[in-house]
Amino acid sequence: MINIGIHGGSGKMGKMIYECLKISQVAKASVIYTIEPLDFTPECVVTDSLDELFKNCDVVVDFTIANGAITLLEFAKAHPKPIVMGTTGLGEMGEKLLNECAKSMPILYATNMSLGVAVLNSLAALASKALRDFDIEICEMHHRHKKDAPSGTALTLATSVAKARELDINKVRVSGRDGMIGARSKDEIAVMSLRGGDIVGRHTVGFYNDGEFIELNHTATSRATFANGAIKAAVWVVGQKPALYSINDCLGL
Amino acid sequence: MINIGIHGGSGKMGKMIYECLKISQVAKASVIYTIEPLDFTPECVVTDSLDELFKNCDVVVDFTIANGAITLLEFAKAHPKPIVMGTTGLGEMGEKLLNECAKSMPILYATNMSLGVAVLNSLAALASKALRDFDIEICEMHHRHKKDAPSGTALTLATSVAKARELDINKVRVSGRDGMIGARSKDEIAVMSLRGGDIVGRHTVGFYNDGEFIELNHTATSRATFANGAIKAAVWVVGQKPALYSINDCLGL
Amino acid sequence: MINIGIHGGSGKMGKMIYECLKISQVAKASVIYTIEPLDFTPECVVTDSLDELFKNCDVVVDFTIANGAITLLEFAKAHPKPIVMGTTGLGEMGEKLLNECAKSMPILYATNMSLGVAVLNSLAALASKALRDFDIEICEMHHRHKKDAPSGTALTLATSVAKARELDINKVRVSGRDGMIGARSKDEIAVMSLRGGDIVGRHTVGFYNDGEFIELNHTATSRATFANGAIKAAVWVVGQKPALYSINDCLGL
Amino acid sequence: MINIGIHGGSGKMGKMIYECLKISQVAKASVIYTIEPLDFTPECVVTDSLDELFKNCDVVVDFTIANGAITLLEFAKAHPKPIVMGTTGLGEMGEKLLNECAKSMPILYATNMSLGVAVLNSLAALASKALRDFDIEICEMHHRHKKDAPSGTALTLATSVAKARELDINKVRVSGRDGMIGARSKDEIAVMSLRGGDIVGRHTVGFYNDGEFIELNHTATSRATFANGAIKAAVWVVGQKPALYSINDCLGL
Repeated sequence: MINIGIHGGSGKMGKMIYECLKISQVAKASVIYTIEPLDFTPECVVTDSLDELFKNCDVVVDFTIANGAITLLEFAKAHPKPIVMGTTGLGEMGEKLLNECAKSMPILYATNMSLGVAVLNSLAALASKALRDFDIEICEMHHRHKKDAPSGTALTLATSVAKARELDINKVRVSGRDGMIGARSKDEIAVMSLRGGDIVGRHTVGFYNDGEFIELNHTATSRATFANGAIKAAVWVVGQKPALYSINDCLGL
Repeated sequence: MINIGIHGGSGKMGKMIYECLKISQVAKASVIYTIEPLDFTPECVVTDSLDELFKNCDVVVDFTIANGAITLLEFAKAHPKPIVMGTTGLGEMGEKLLNECAKSMPILYATNMSLGVAVLNSLAALASKALRDFDIEICEMHHRHKKDAPSGTALTLATSVAKARELDINKVRVSGRDGMIGARSKDEIAVMSLRGGDIVGRHTVGFYNDGEFIELNHTATSRATFANGAIKAAVWVVGQKPALYSINDCLGL
Repeated sequence: MINIGIHGGSGKMGKMIYECLKISQVAKASVIYTIEPLDFTPECVVTDSLDELFKNCDVVVDFTIANGAITLLEFAKAHPKPIVMGTTGLGEMGEKLLNECAKSMPILYATNMSLGVAVLNSLAALASKALRDFDIEICEMHHRHKKDAPSGTALTLATSVAKARELDINKVRVSGRDGMIGARSKDEIAVMSLRGGDIVGRHTVGFYNDGEFIELNHTATSRATFANGAIKAAVWVVGQKPALYSINDCLGL
Repeated sequence: MINIGIHGGSGKMGKMIYECLKISQVAKASVIYTIEPLDFTPECVVTDSLDELFKNCDVVVDFTIANGAITLLEFAKAHPKPIVMGTTGLGEMGEKLLNECAKSMPILYATNMSLGVAVLNSLAALASKALRDFDIEICEMHHRHKKDAPSGTALTLATSVAKARELDINKVRVSGRDGMIGARSKDEIAVMSLRGGDIVGRHTVGFYNDGEFIELNHTATSRATFANGAIKAAVWVVGQKPALYSINDCLGL
């Protein structure tokens, strides 16, 4: 059994990972790090010390916010440990730190831990290249409580399809359209964010040309999908050499 | 046979209406008004005089741009004639003029002449009222050449669902989302515009709640749909009393 | 607080209703009838006697199978009690019994307890009438464990759209297409059943014509939707006069 | 300019290919073979002799029915000539003949000539392998006049995804579901055919698992897509060595 340390145990994903680990055959939650009180009573160590967290597990799984993730990475720099990180919006500094840490420990970083999204990402990049003349538009939908837009996953998809055409997503991304905007420019990629209800996550990458179009869609029907993906990634990353990995490395895509 | 005068014969819709009239059993194109040269040779009067246009037809069908439509209405004010108008973006002044003209002639105004869109509009308003707790989001898609956003049809749909909840669409409409925008506010209605390929027109009105959602979609597969709707409206409006009509009046919805 | 008796406590829906009642403000589970052992420990009476079930509640909610529902109705005939019934496939005999019982007690019968599906059903019937020339096709999707096809909800929708055109669904329904079947006949309505994954329930009613089409979709994202609908129906039916009610009566549609 | 001979000039696809060739920069219609009178007046040779057809072109493009295609292949066996064939339902004998002919001339055979469908087919095969645990379901929709089901394209897609899992599509394909059919078996692949309106062609390949699903969709918005694909294939096949080619060979997929 792999011992997993959960960094961010009071968050939605932290709790879901703990729940999914309860029925796992290959891994268990050995320690939970949290700075806020938990609204459940876990059967493992609970701590607000990073030192305790690291001592009590084989691998740390992090789903927090940028600040939390950065503090974790700074600690890890001096105390190497396998890490799975799912926190989005790290920023330039966070990403630099991520790369530094990856020199002395194996880190798997992914904005989305589901197998399906990883496959969608690969397919979308292939289609982007094969259908070079087609216009690309991306549409994502999430529940009404989501605070940022577009989703990290939508940005990952947009970056992949742009890269496949040697475009810089930051230069071609559009996040809204209103008024007399004129005809669509060839390379622009709209990433539109819908919000409503309890939608777990839905992403569509569309490719449109005269006479035909293709739409590739991924829909998550349960948040457990991401938790189980993170657990799978954690078990995998324990045995790897120091490097920065993506979910594709874990899945062999 | 009803004699139809086409105002804006060099535009996409003008040409399509002329084509559809060629095979109509109940109406024919008797005159085309255009200020630009036509790239086809119609078998009817062609003129750049509004006087000639009005003299040679039973009803005028207008698909131009705001300025063209306003000039037409100003002329009609002094020379009443049944009118079908499909031009969008008239502005406050144009709409005022429209209402004035409708005192002395029957005018049917619609941003979309298709039967299907009229039905969608009715259904969406009903759903908006019956599903009061559901979040509403609208998504429209059109070909890459479309210059304005959102489409007139999407705005009509948005206005209908807002009105059904006694909301002012101008206060609740959102046309893009980007960054740390926070959780969705209860009453906001996003109207998102996708552009690409040769999509004739696709509109989806979605209603989202915890546990379930409904999506109502209309897709136009041919521009002839709108031309045939306009012809149907023209034949109908000829026999009506002075008033401002919607496509629903013509369809008996 | 309304006291609800759950008939069929060991089934998926029975358990879900019990779970949802735990957090309800207006109703609580007062008794569970089951002939199989439960895999949870409810905080209410558990019995395998219909007499006990009826004595301990204000209203009975039934989600079982045809035989179970019929036995319940036979007992109720002599012991009138408000009933909410969601069991599908009752057959001719079961439906006759249902109507008989409804003379002496209020019974709400629905193949789908969600608000959204009830609204979809109303909208689809309206569209069917307004778009008389459009071809109708229905597509439903459920999880891989579902044993019958099409779903009761799909049949209800098909019956509604057929009835709106004065067609007998049993004469026009098609459940598959294979080989040289020839062109589509005007009135046929395909009801196609897809199965896979853990899809809770997705129904699409489509209306197709030359030049345009409309698709009306309902998607359930959580089984709790149906349980909460059943609870709402149970609270409502307690105060009604003897009669057979539909979910629409409860929702005021 | 490549000289194209159209085999089946009175059919929908034959006429569309002629229309598209009128504006082509690289190929022109040099001869049309037809046994029925044409309802248009082409500016090229028209004949009912295969000998004349072959003498007047560099490549033959065939969109007929099985019998027509087989007669063409029998003639070609003795008179080798590059061929593009889009006729579906050739049967065992036809396919044998196709392989024989391909020994002495280059033949490109495809049930669908669009770039988008070829890409969809590649993506679906990749997904089928990467998502081995996911249930596969295919849904296609075509206009109300289509006489066979499922479409040749849907069968091609089904064959591809089955092959990627080393399954025989003839053993796992399901074309309808009705009654108490029991839970879904692991390997079955439903290919469901919807018919209605003027839908040119819509294909969706879905992959469903607990917690998530992926749906890959291709929609043709104009029949010209297929005609232009066939012309591209014809120009390409002229320079190839004798062999049986697929559309993927032409597209470099």
